[in-house]
Amino acid sequence: MSGTTTDNSLPANQFGPSHLLWTECRVLAERAAEAARHIGVTSGAARNSWLKMAAEGLRHRRDEILASNQKDVDAAPGFGLNAAAIDRLKLDSKRLEAIARAVEEVAALPDPVGEVIHGGKRPNGLEVSQIRVPLGVIFMIYESRPNVTVDAAALCIKSGNACILRGGKEATHTNRIFHQILSDTLEQSGLPRDAVGIVPTSDRDAVGVLLQMSDKIDLAIPRGGSGLIKRVSHDAKMPVLKHDAGICHVYIDKSADIVMGVNIIVNSKAQRPAVCNAAEALLVHHEIAQEFLPIAAEALLAEDVELRGDHEACRIVPIIVPASEQDWDTEYGEKILNVAVVADIDAALAHIHRHSSKHTEAIITRDIQAAQHFIAHADSSAVMVNASTRFNDGGELGLGAEIGISTNKFHARGPCGLTELTTTKWIVIGNGQIRG
Amino acid sequence: MSGTTTDNSLPANQFGPSHLLWTECRVLAERAAEAARHIGVTSGAARNSWLKMAAEGLRHRRDEILASNQKDVDAAPGFGLNAAAIDRLKLDSKRLEAIARAVEEVAALPDPVGEVIHGGKRPNGLEVSQIRVPLGVIFMIYESRPNVTVDAAALCIKSGNACILRGGKEATHTNRIFHQILSDTLEQSGLPRDAVGIVPTSDRDAVGVLLQMSDKIDLAIPRGGSGLIKRVSHDAKMPVLKHDAGICHVYIDKSADIVMGVNIIVNSKAQRPAVCNAAEALLVHHEIAQEFLPIAAEALLAEDVELRGDHEACRIVPIIVPASEQDWDTEYGEKILNVAVVADIDAALAHIHRHSSKHTEAIITRDIQAAQHFIAHADSSAVMVNASTRFNDGGELGLGAEIGISTNKFHARGPCGLTELTTTKWIVIGNGQIRG
Repeated sequence: MSGTTTDNSLPANQFGPSHLLWTECRVLAERAAEAARHIGVTSGAARNSWLKMAAEGLRHRRDEILASNQKDVDAAPGFGLNAAAIDRLKLDSKRLEAIARAVEEVAALPDPVGEVIHGGKRPNGLEVSQIRVPLGVIFMIYESRPNVTVDAAALCIKSGNACILRGGKEATHTNRIFHQILSDTLEQSGLPRDAVGIVPTSDRDAVGVLLQMSDKIDLAIPRGGSGLIKRVSHDAKMPVLKHDAGICHVYIDKSADIVMGVNIIVNSKAQRPAVCNAAEALLVHHEIAQEFLPIAAEALLAEDVELRGDHEACRIVPIIVPASEQDWDTEYGEKILNVAVVADIDAALAHIHRHSSKHTEAIITRDIQAAQHFIAHADSSAVMVNASTRFNDGGELGLGAEIGISTNKFHARGPCGLTELTTTKWIVIGNGQIRG
Repeated sequence: MSGTTTDNSLPANQFGPSHLLWTECRVLAERAAEAARHIGVTSGAARNSWLKMAAEGLRHRRDEILASNQKDVDAAPGFGLNAAAIDRLKLDSKRLEAIARAVEEVAALPDPVGEVIHGGKRPNGLEVSQIRVPLGVIFMIYESRPNVTVDAAALCIKSGNACILRGGKEATHTNRIFHQILSDTLEQSGLPRDAVGIVPTSDRDAVGVLLQMSDKIDLAIPRGGSGLIKRVSHDAKMPVLKHDAGICHVYIDKSADIVMGVNIIVNSKAQRPAVCNAAEALLVHHEIAQEFLPIAAEALLAEDVELRGDHEACRIVPIIVPASEQDWDTEYGEKILNVAVVADIDAALAHIHRHSSKHTEAIITRDIQAAQHFIAHADSSAVMVNASTRFNDGGELGLGAEIGISTNKFHARGPCGLTELTTTKWIVIGNGQIRG
């Protein structure tokens, strides 16, 4: 059929996935697609009622969840997880309560389904409206943190979609009990149990097989390291919402308020260095560099940030070590910051154009023309004026919970909330109109 | 860099495209990307002024255009074009004037660039807004009709994008003079000449090479037969806006007004059978079939429509010939219509689910519950109630000119006008805010 280039006939050759694996994946995808057709026409009230029931289910079965999670934690060193990764994997009563509360917060968000985006009466009397409808089936592939299992299911079902979840093998037991609770409560609330599916095998090839099934799965969302994102983007026959690297820049204009600039670069880099909206590079106008850089360096060093710079930055602040060519294209995810001195705002924009991952850029300036110029020319999902890069976040921008931050221009850009899990449909109501 | 899986290094092996072809394509793509950066920040007034100048240029150089077009028409039989295809290729003063006027109509449309979609003040005082920005570079690949060259360029530039055009070889001379006029007027109006690029070689491999360059080209739009669309979808490393097959259905509910139903199916099928929003199948509720089908068949036969049907349809109207299994999945594009008698509205929806290309479906009914049920369950880009399928069209829905009708759910669905040639960007204005 049109709209897909996928061949979903059984793989014939010996190098493809096994018949059994293919069949398991096919059944999963077909059930999810069937569930999506049902859940797509349920009322917002029915979906909210499940969300509340699921939150209660998580609280009610706390002991089971923590016991399953303990199994994962015990096995974690065997998977080579370090202390930080094990900490991210670990649940306790407080973290579990936060997960349950997050589900209730999703219930409280407005229903995106059915929202009228455009509408009006045409000259011939036709009443036309473009409304939001669910996408269908969303395939989430993610690493360690088990709360994603619950968050993703909540956002997908809230927006009228079914989902197929594939978490990290390190969280197998936790994900399994979460999935059971989600499915059980779906059934209890009269929604299709298969609306939340979990890949039933740990076989790595299962992801590749499911990524071929564009006739049943409408969107793939990988969340994790760049290896995972590259692999999913390469293999998927359906659209991919990429939550990719954040190589974000803060540019200090010559008219910048110096204290504000220092506060913002410290916050952008050091407040939570592992996240994608943290800054990786500081660009400073040469007219202000001599004054700004020593103060900024001191504040950053006080936060244990290692500084790497270009020739001029190193000259002004000798503690800055020379950056390599590759450093400018690196998302450190830790307390390391690149520093460059630039000739002017256009040199800063040229640097950003060359090295940015198009996630978030910030300008610190008192000059309204500089702000406007930077806004127009910085081609990223969010542009900040006199604010930290850390504000490029669904919650901070007022979207509610987010399922990721898209560095793509399609089909959504920037933080993706419930609205971004929908597509649209035109409804045309007439009384017999035909075209002349 | 993140966000792309493309390797744009020079192809090394002997089976890839030639060095020369690769270089030609690379230069074209790089120039378009550079032009896009400029045109993306121009004012709407500057882009409108070019549109008006281009329309005048087309009128002014009419004789040159018609002479070039005559060369294509003369060569057409050599390419195996039949009379209908040659007619579509041929320009005269009247058709050329229509093309020029269409460009002026695009100038009159509102500017999509900079439109604020969301905005507001956050509790911490940040002023946030999500605005529309151009996509960047759009690669259009299309067949014969040379007006697409001008239409596509007008829509792309109007929405602040650059474009690369690849028309059919049958229209080479016409496309070349059009391109010259578009480029000359771009230069005259102070916009970058390279904002409209044309693939400089007729080498078929050029399309495949350009479709790899996702670092420079943001969107590919194929317009033409299903072979072209399949090939582009398969090869492209960037998103593809698919204007794919229209297998559209008209369902006559048991409560339908019979005269209205007949008028609508005749209009949906026969008014312009070659276009994608024409109907290919008529589904009739069994309780009304005995009364409806003979009248409908007579009206359709009077329009020279050939009828193919299921067992029950053939029984009621013996002139209907049996349809093959494949017929139900066929976009005829001519005056042939499939007819099936269905048990009820859900059987109609099941038939649509199995055979539709998710373009347009219509229900004819007096029953508001049936209308609501059909709207909710028909998963297509547009759903019509008591109106012809032919209204799924950008102009008819009030979007102005359209660049295609997307049968995808991403990044746009249904008729794509100027808005669908944009993406978004968040702008955040603060006065020193940092995250706590």
